[in-house]
Amino acid sequence: MFVYADNAATTAVSKKVVDAMVPYFSEIYGNPSSLYSVGQKAKDALEESREKIAKIIGAKPKEIYFTSGGSESDNQAIISAARLGAKEGKKHIISSKFEHHAVLHTLDTLEKEGFEITLVDVHSNGIVDPVEIEKAIREDTALVTIMYVNNEIGTIQPIEEIGRICRDKNVLFHTDAVQAVSHVHINVKEQNIDMLSISAHKFHGPKGVGVLYAKNGVTLTSIINGGAQERGKRAGTENIAGIVGMTVALEDAVSRIDENNANLSLLQDKLIEGLKKIPYSNINGDLEKRIKSNVNISFEGVEGESLLLLLDQKGIAVSSGSACSSGSIDPSHVLIAIGLPSEVAHSSLRITLGEDATEEQIDYIVNTVTEIVEYLRGFSPFWDEMMSGKRPHIFEN
Amino acid sequence: MFVYADNAATTAVSKKVVDAMVPYFSEIYGNPSSLYSVGQKAKDALEESREKIAKIIGAKPKEIYFTSGGSESDNQAIISAARLGAKEGKKHIISSKFEHHAVLHTLDTLEKEGFEITLVDVHSNGIVDPVEIEKAIREDTALVTIMYVNNEIGTIQPIEEIGRICRDKNVLFHTDAVQAVSHVHINVKEQNIDMLSISAHKFHGPKGVGVLYAKNGVTLTSIINGGAQERGKRAGTENIAGIVGMTVALEDAVSRIDENNANLSLLQDKLIEGLKKIPYSNINGDLEKRIKSNVNISFEGVEGESLLLLLDQKGIAVSSGSACSSGSIDPSHVLIAIGLPSEVAHSSLRITLGEDATEEQIDYIVNTVTEIVEYLRGFSPFWDEMMSGKRPHIFEN
Repeated sequence: MFVYADNAATTAVSKKVVDAMVPYFSEIYGNPSSLYSVGQKAKDALEESREKIAKIIGAKPKEIYFTSGGSESDNQAIISAARLGAKEGKKHIISSKFEHHAVLHTLDTLEKEGFEITLVDVHSNGIVDPVEIEKAIREDTALVTIMYVNNEIGTIQPIEEIGRICRDKNVLFHTDAVQAVSHVHINVKEQNIDMLSISAHKFHGPKGVGVLYAKNGVTLTSIINGGAQERGKRAGTENIAGIVGMTVALEDAVSRIDENNANLSLLQDKLIEGLKKIPYSNINGDLEKRIKSNVNISFEGVEGESLLLLLDQKGIAVSSGSACSSGSIDPSHVLIAIGLPSEVAHSSLRITLGEDATEEQIDYIVNTVTEIVEYLRGFSPFWDEMMSGKRPHIFEN
Repeated sequence: MFVYADNAATTAVSKKVVDAMVPYFSEIYGNPSSLYSVGQKAKDALEESREKIAKIIGAKPKEIYFTSGGSESDNQAIISAARLGAKEGKKHIISSKFEHHAVLHTLDTLEKEGFEITLVDVHSNGIVDPVEIEKAIREDTALVTIMYVNNEIGTIQPIEEIGRICRDKNVLFHTDAVQAVSHVHINVKEQNIDMLSISAHKFHGPKGVGVLYAKNGVTLTSIINGGAQERGKRAGTENIAGIVGMTVALEDAVSRIDENNANLSLLQDKLIEGLKKIPYSNINGDLEKRIKSNVNISFEGVEGESLLLLLDQKGIAVSSGSACSSGSIDPSHVLIAIGLPSEVAHSSLRITLGEDATEEQIDYIVNTVTEIVEYLRGFSPFWDEMMSGKRPHIFEN
């Protein structure tokens, strides 16, 4: 059996999306900046995509900018807010400790430039407290940037509340919605979101394309300069095929959010119930305020990477941390942020189900993980020490 | 008849390229940062692409960075050189007046930061003189950036000579090779190129993907921060399908350079010969030192945009300037740089043939352009004034 359960890392492009893209490679291939028909047809597709995406998130078409993906969107949003703030002498930015590296590393570069960064703590349930945000806001705060859904533990943040606080305090609010947009209903106006990042490949669209929503009046700083594309805010010939594919994927994903969540909720319950039977394990992140596809679990005395590799041999693709930082030996900064000790953070598994997941797959995952955890504990010195009482357990049995 | 003759703006993705990409959408869709098989297969494709592209331009695989396209590559190359230079107190950059806007506008932002920019003049034949570059180099010069082939007039620059001068003077040398790579043979080592930009959609690859070559030892500054992709120099999940497509397209294009140039040379001669018969017209750019696909011609008393739109009605897609800046009413900065008066710059047509162009298409272009120029001159007050001697001609008959 092959089970791809790493949909937070990336997703397969759906057939519908591929079919929608193909004509834009070899038939309607014109440059949208060109005045002749084959260019104008591409331009029409571009603007139609912009309208559709705007409608989905409750924005206006002119508030939608196409980028090369979520990381670029995050970078541009934060840099833009920083430049706008600096003009008014505001050089303070608030974020949280468990944001994506595209946010955290952009904040690092701004800190070197003289910005002051406040990273609020995250509760052990993986939720940022709006009160903490409110307390952190100062006269010179240029931006609050908090992710909508955490990429590792799937917890949904109180975005509407944070949005309301930012509006009341007159501070710009950006949210990285890369992991959210196909799981929760987003309306940027109702939720007081000034800027929002989207990445197509997280919802069965292609890699290499994304969206930055920026509210009318929020002037973006271009981070790729050149031609006048995207109203002068993002140079480079537009990736029309990718943009059309992303639009089809997003429409499809959003139209099925409720249906998918209903199905996934049952499967998530079944998966959690099954995995919790493994002794000395712990589900990371709030059990209620989380997207329905994500289960993140730690097992005492097991090295997550070994678990991942053995699961791969059994045809199960999962992650032991954020995909972006694998290859690194540092424990996940997300799991550290919610208070897990570093050895437990190393022993965690992220399972992110696809919308086509089945009960049979859940059974297969539970049985296989159970077997492999037992197998790995068989030669784990940590596990031996814990079981013989030389080392205290971290979780309850 | 439909003739797409705007291949410098963008090209149709070849069937071979689309076929190569498709499996990477829905089959080998894993995130290359993932450790399991479906991720590692994507990673293998990524590294194989890197090796192939490196080989084609005479570089090492680790000198190849994948980007979202030519504009991003230009931006990152120039920003990186500026940051490296600034560390040694070098804040002077040399370029030319007819570079692509991705270069010129990036230089604008650096100028605002305190860099000094020297833009050398371009000869009336559309060639930058290496002697001018040599004269402009100072102790504090951080970078020379000169395009390999001009995007509007197709002139080939003396890159090897400029490379040698830069090496001798110990100055970094970047070239925007976006319009060159499928037309001339490039070897970055032999030509002393330190950084080079490539864009896939100019040679029948997909839009939204490109390459930045940076010589070993030239430390890039990341302009998109986040995950550790591209050895920490370009964050964001890699666009594997696009990268694989670009690689196939580049191998295909480069393997056929000589064959294509031989065919195109005959067609270019035929096209120039035919169009030159139109009275008071002028071919822009050197007739010898140009790529074989490009013919750029100005017609007295004709508005380029009207010509373009009427040609479109006859099924001929051409450009009246750089595609990136259409929609702007400014005359082409390239044509101004080579000394054309602004009204003549407005009256120019860029025809860029595809490798599949035929003699029949050339005949059709020549006949149609001739007819339309005559038609438009029929109600041009400028033309009337020139023909009645009230206004001097600019070109000879």
